[in-house]
Amino acid sequence: MDNNIRISYPKSEKIYLSGTLYPDLRVGMRRIRQTPTVTVENGRRHTTPNAPVVVYDTSGPYSDPNVEIDLRRGLPKLRKPWIERRGSGTQLYWARKGVITEEMEYVAIRENMNCEKLGIESHITPEFVRQQVAAGHAVIPANINHPESEPMIIGTDFLVKINTNLGNSAVSSGITEEVEKAVWSCKWGGDTIMDLSTGKDITKTREWILRNSPVPVGTVPMYQAFEKAGGKIENLSWELFRDTLIEQAEQGVDYFTIHCGIRLENVPLSQSRLTGMVSRGGSIIAKWCTINRQESFLYTHFDDICDICQQYDIAISLGDGLRPGCTRDANDAAQFAELDTLGQLVERAWERNVQVFVEGPGHVPMHKIRENMDRQIERCHGAPFYTLGPIVTDIAPGYDHITSAIGAAAIGWYGTAMLCYVTPKEHLALPNREDVRTGVIAYKIAAHAADLAKGHPGAFVRDDALSKARYEFRWTDQFNLSLDPDLARQYYIDGNPREGQYCSMCGPNFCAARISHTLDECEDIDK
Amino acid sequence: MDNNIRISYPKSEKIYLSGTLYPDLRVGMRRIRQTPTVTVENGRRHTTPNAPVVVYDTSGPYSDPNVEIDLRRGLPKLRKPWIERRGSGTQLYWARKGVITEEMEYVAIRENMNCEKLGIESHITPEFVRQQVAAGHAVIPANINHPESEPMIIGTDFLVKINTNLGNSAVSSGITEEVEKAVWSCKWGGDTIMDLSTGKDITKTREWILRNSPVPVGTVPMYQAFEKAGGKIENLSWELFRDTLIEQAEQGVDYFTIHCGIRLENVPLSQSRLTGMVSRGGSIIAKWCTINRQESFLYTHFDDICDICQQYDIAISLGDGLRPGCTRDANDAAQFAELDTLGQLVERAWERNVQVFVEGPGHVPMHKIRENMDRQIERCHGAPFYTLGPIVTDIAPGYDHITSAIGAAAIGWYGTAMLCYVTPKEHLALPNREDVRTGVIAYKIAAHAADLAKGHPGAFVRDDALSKARYEFRWTDQFNLSLDPDLARQYYIDGNPREGQYCSMCGPNFCAARISHTLDECEDIDK
Repeated sequence: MDNNIRISYPKSEKIYLSGTLYPDLRVGMRRIRQTPTVTVENGRRHTTPNAPVVVYDTSGPYSDPNVEIDLRRGLPKLRKPWIERRGSGTQLYWARKGVITEEMEYVAIRENMNCEKLGIESHITPEFVRQQVAAGHAVIPANINHPESEPMIIGTDFLVKINTNLGNSAVSSGITEEVEKAVWSCKWGGDTIMDLSTGKDITKTREWILRNSPVPVGTVPMYQAFEKAGGKIENLSWELFRDTLIEQAEQGVDYFTIHCGIRLENVPLSQSRLTGMVSRGGSIIAKWCTINRQESFLYTHFDDICDICQQYDIAISLGDGLRPGCTRDANDAAQFAELDTLGQLVERAWERNVQVFVEGPGHVPMHKIRENMDRQIERCHGAPFYTLGPIVTDIAPGYDHITSAIGAAAIGWYGTAMLCYVTPKEHLALPNREDVRTGVIAYKIAAHAADLAKGHPGAFVRDDALSKARYEFRWTDQFNLSLDPDLARQYYIDGNPREGQYCSMCGPNFCAARISHTLDECEDIDK
Repeated sequence: MDNNIRISYPKSEKIYLSGTLYPDLRVGMRRIRQTPTVTVENGRRHTTPNAPVVVYDTSGPYSDPNVEIDLRRGLPKLRKPWIERRGSGTQLYWARKGVITEEMEYVAIRENMNCEKLGIESHITPEFVRQQVAAGHAVIPANINHPESEPMIIGTDFLVKINTNLGNSAVSSGITEEVEKAVWSCKWGGDTIMDLSTGKDITKTREWILRNSPVPVGTVPMYQAFEKAGGKIENLSWELFRDTLIEQAEQGVDYFTIHCGIRLENVPLSQSRLTGMVSRGGSIIAKWCTINRQESFLYTHFDDICDICQQYDIAISLGDGLRPGCTRDANDAAQFAELDTLGQLVERAWERNVQVFVEGPGHVPMHKIRENMDRQIERCHGAPFYTLGPIVTDIAPGYDHITSAIGAAAIGWYGTAMLCYVTPKEHLALPNREDVRTGVIAYKIAAHAADLAKGHPGAFVRDDALSKARYEFRWTDQFNLSLDPDLARQYYIDGNPREGQYCSMCGPNFCAARISHTLDECEDIDK
């Protein structure tokens, strides 16, 4: 394993913005330089500079050449002094007390990117962040034992975030690969990582990921509990699960997906479905309920779970164990019965100052997506929604990053705060490195499309800069401003003999942009 | 060049359905066989057969082993006897006369696929088709000189269609490659082909494509006219353009994209844009207008164009030369001014019994898509809409099949009848064979997602069958029912040592589907 992994982007530099309330904050961003616009008028060459574009940056210290990286030692503990200074209490607790934490100012600065420089008005102030967190409408996942993570916020009124699932299963993958995948996900723009390991070395894998992750890390603790139970559902118990929560909490996991919403009476609702249950954690606890003919310990011990999460400021991601596994099963009685339960649990978490968000589908045809969002807002009292896609048709295994990016863009626009990525290998195999890249980019597209549609302040700046570069044949700027500069450049180079005032798509005589540029000239002549 | 290109799909056979009004009709479809469901109860093995699934088939005779293929001779002339029997007149002409043509019954059968067998009620009868064509709300592109093409229909109340752009530019590609790409597009599900060649051998390329294309072929005749004019806009004239139209009409082109909607007064509207004009044909004619300070001959000779199209039953695809080239320019004055003109031209085409549809954007952020569709319906009197994507964010060159599939799925759901595909190489280079495949599949996904959302009768059958196969671990059925069986199978094989009751995603102990199947058993035990 390379202990000095680095992330770099072409023509980009790491910059840091400082805070006002907390002047020692250093909020990392990526600034992309552009070449000037060159025009020729009356035979004379003019150059006009193009301002650099600042973009949201999830790459953490890996893209800062001034920070020493050693995977064995882990990343610098950015949040350690804040946590020590502040003492105990969750972000929700402080927000309700009227306190703007360092994390709150950090995310306010981070979300605004180009706004101050370009004079774009933004509603996102540190006080607005505090209000959103206080109301439970936004979550800052930030376990006090994961001080390496850079604060980020999950809520409808902020940039749509994306999560990357990583983790070995019993069949394939290993620790080295998983840590490298985590950094790889950060490179392409993943906002959080879920470590879904189910094989050997779960604890060790997670420790490596946490100490080296600049983004919040989530888990499904049931996976490890199930391993501890020897893969036997009958061996599961609250005590075993609780100990697993505490172990992971101590390590620094920032959010737990727990399928607390599965009620004994709702399990049979899934049996009339085309594809039953497709949630791993959900099916385990549903089976436990059925075997024991009693409510799940995740439900009956929900307050105990909250008490643990409250101590570490772990956010609860209320899992949707009864989510539909195909478009046919979308929006059915099982799914919506669970959503109602989740809404009740949201309020109980809030009572204990625990940050909470709610997971959603899955597989939903386009005309049924809106109902998911509207119902979630209503039943879950505005807690952030975190969906897996949804996939909008089931007929394209091998392309489910696309079937789901369609649904993800739509539900993100409607208000979903975070989107769990889907790779091309979904339903078929574990993703490899290239699949992770493809999945992350597909979801950055969905999230950004939603940001544009929601009118997030400054979201359009990158689009406009890239469009201008495209129209002016500034090819390298076009590549560098794109989500995947390497691929864009490669496609261009492979298809075009040399850089010029056209590309191979239309050839030199048919370039609309070139002709369009000369329309002005004609008018000038006539004047 | 291989003169005996074949298309095959795993576990599939070509079937033909016959007509009622026209009993000699043979409407080709693809029937996918499935393996039975195997269950074990009380130690005994039961098998339950799964019905084959019939899917819409654009592969024409290439997938029928009983048809001899020779690219030099071209495909069988399916429609020749119908055209001869019927005599002159467009589909619109006959529809208005109350005549249901062979093409109309053909498409009615073709659209319904599984309906009769599964008892699914469908509104799509031959008479309904006639009414839709008569009202101008649907188009059957069918040049009398392209009898090789299998009838298909473009309209909101039918399956959403997709178009594939092919064609060499001066910089790359050749004839052989283009014909193979055409068949390749048909294999993956392209409903029409646009031959956008701009390099040498335009006429010869087109002839090869037409004689061997089982799907309608469209062109942008301005490209050839511009070549004839030596690439000089000032050499363009109505006469030169007219002769080009006639040449292509004689060859059998089924629809012409013509940018008739560019008015002299509207050209300056594009100059305040971020990216001016990005339509090749549009920019050429806009420049002609500006140079000559007069209305374009495409506009002033629109009735003459209609007279030519009427003779051959060529559909006019009213090009949107002022479509936005970036999300910033979407829904602006230039775009909507042109749309108003196109609406007027729709009525003039209808007066001459010419079938017509209207092209649309392009680049549109999600929150502005709906307005495009609603406005088009209103201003263009319900003529079918045919859009290019739209791309919903500009920041992902290299992934514009995804950025645009998101917009395409949305606008298809809202009512757009045909979607022009975009490949991963859009904005960067000409697509190669693999790019065509990826682009077509991305658009089949968008179109099918829209069909599901619109409730097209029977669209769900394939989704449900695949979902059932997935839940029952019938892996090969899952692959065979998918849009790209080869890729799905490959991903699975690469990632999994052998076929089993699980895949490498979750491993044997964490398979939700496997656990979910056993929930029933628990309940049985307790009863």
